[in-house]
Amino acid sequence: MVLDTNTRVVALVGGVGGAKLVYGLSTILQPDQLTVIGNVADDFELYGLHISPDLDTVMYTMAGLANPTTGWGIEGDTWHVLEMLQCYGEDAWFRLGDRDLGTHILRTQWLRQGHTLTVVTQRLISSLGVKSRLLPVTDDPLVTMIDTVEHGTLAFQDYFVRHRWQPTVKHVWFKHADQAHMTESVKTALHDADVILVCPSNPVLSIAPLLAVPGMREMIEKRRAVCVGVSPFVGGNAVKGPAAKLMQELGMAITPRGLIDFYAGGLDGLVIDVSDRDQPLHADVPVLVTRTLMQTSEDKVRLARELFKWVGSITT
Amino acid sequence: MVLDTNTRVVALVGGVGGAKLVYGLSTILQPDQLTVIGNVADDFELYGLHISPDLDTVMYTMAGLANPTTGWGIEGDTWHVLEMLQCYGEDAWFRLGDRDLGTHILRTQWLRQGHTLTVVTQRLISSLGVKSRLLPVTDDPLVTMIDTVEHGTLAFQDYFVRHRWQPTVKHVWFKHADQAHMTESVKTALHDADVILVCPSNPVLSIAPLLAVPGMREMIEKRRAVCVGVSPFVGGNAVKGPAAKLMQELGMAITPRGLIDFYAGGLDGLVIDVSDRDQPLHADVPVLVTRTLMQTSEDKVRLARELFKWVGSITT
Repeated sequence: MVLDTNTRVVALVGGVGGAKLVYGLSTILQPDQLTVIGNVADDFELYGLHISPDLDTVMYTMAGLANPTTGWGIEGDTWHVLEMLQCYGEDAWFRLGDRDLGTHILRTQWLRQGHTLTVVTQRLISSLGVKSRLLPVTDDPLVTMIDTVEHGTLAFQDYFVRHRWQPTVKHVWFKHADQAHMTESVKTALHDADVILVCPSNPVLSIAPLLAVPGMREMIEKRRAVCVGVSPFVGGNAVKGPAAKLMQELGMAITPRGLIDFYAGGLDGLVIDVSDRDQPLHADVPVLVTRTLMQTSEDKVRLARELFKWVGSITT
Repeated sequence: MVLDTNTRVVALVGGVGGAKLVYGLSTILQPDQLTVIGNVADDFELYGLHISPDLDTVMYTMAGLANPTTGWGIEGDTWHVLEMLQCYGEDAWFRLGDRDLGTHILRTQWLRQGHTLTVVTQRLISSLGVKSRLLPVTDDPLVTMIDTVEHGTLAFQDYFVRHRWQPTVKHVWFKHADQAHMTESVKTALHDADVILVCPSNPVLSIAPLLAVPGMREMIEKRRAVCVGVSPFVGGNAVKGPAAKLMQELGMAITPRGLIDFYAGGLDGLVIDVSDRDQPLHADVPVLVTRTLMQTSEDKVRLARELFKWVGSITT
């Protein structure tokens, strides 16, 4: 396929790792070429505020506000609201920065006023100067649930933050998924896409909830777009976070092959890290071997460029 | 009357000035001797949060957290949430500090969970280590409305903060007052009081809304307690804020006599500032002339001590 300034890219993304690649893409594409579909299954309510950790990580990263050390939150943020909540005896288990809370306060207000999460997210991100679209996969409730050996069933943030993803995972499922609807914006974006990119996000916790929304998997299977993935693994491990530990506990292989199997024929190509080049692959899935670790802005832009160039060489 | 450690004092209070005297009282009384009845008619909602400016001023002052320069807000507070709201294009006309927002976030959450403002306020203030009771006069909606010459009818914070109390006031009224109920806690406190103290707060904007709640005025009129006031005026003017300007616009005298008339026979005694000692008074209302300006902690404690000693000399 020929890639040019008319090529429309849809990125499926979770949090930190995927957000970095999205940032790289946003620097090489025109704003209207890029639509990002974000995960909402880690959304939760805290202190009466609607928190959307994955959407915010993508939004802050695209806006150039993200904390480069943690990958989440806002660079230089402070913790004074949280300190006050602790004065009132609250357990501040989830780290909410002051500037970050500005986002949650407005989101919550606008949702209560009856706006959809799609509208609210668009309003927030465009106020921060980002011109590409960031779409929640659904405006309906969707919650990642983790069945663990030690603590029974945990809601995602309980597992991820409160228990620091240490419990052993038996099963992951998505509460309310059967009643969730793809938004019209998501349908249109997928329908119009020339390239669908599965970002280097946690396959089970970030990408699977997107695919759990009825219709998503079917639309991707019936695509006319090229669908490529970027492996979140480096050297047979996750760069950060629970992906490798959790997938092992679920009996999945932390390899490019394991990833291709997980996406069950959905990928027309896969980008893997040089450190994983000796892992076995099927010959029928084209692979780009490069450095996938994104530590600097230059890394993000370089990977996006290589990816985009390579996608043009894939024939489906 | 004999004042001792069994004497129960109820203070009717608005914001800054009254809060200072309440602080002084709290240092000379046992916690269970003091009950503060606070104004809620300046409460409003902003960014979906329930703000109670007067209650918070009293709470922060009693807890020793108040900003000594402004009299409201928390000392050393920062403005990072508000800065972020401005990034999102919000008009940050009302100055909400970060730590202060911790209060509003929790209050809003607890109110939404179905707790009364009385319960919420008690939970907040006791978490800050204050053992005396701070009671909102009512748990029902009550809103100070200002009819102005220049801008028509304004809700209180619009008049007070957005327009910096510059519009000319024609009339002040209290929306929803006829449907508001005194809380059981307020009724009990007034019933049990030995001394009712009308703090040096704005008579029209802070004390009048308390008296506008059906039953309040009647309970005070039928009191067995001694009811004394502290004039908010110094040298024929307000120490701070719109009291003098507004009362003049309403045709009221900015004098001890004007105050006695405003409270319509409700006062058994009045404390006035030395600078107002030459103002005419009725001989039938006992007066304590002293320095009422409270700039330091020592001022607050001294005034509370003098007041308390003098109240013991009043026979009703």
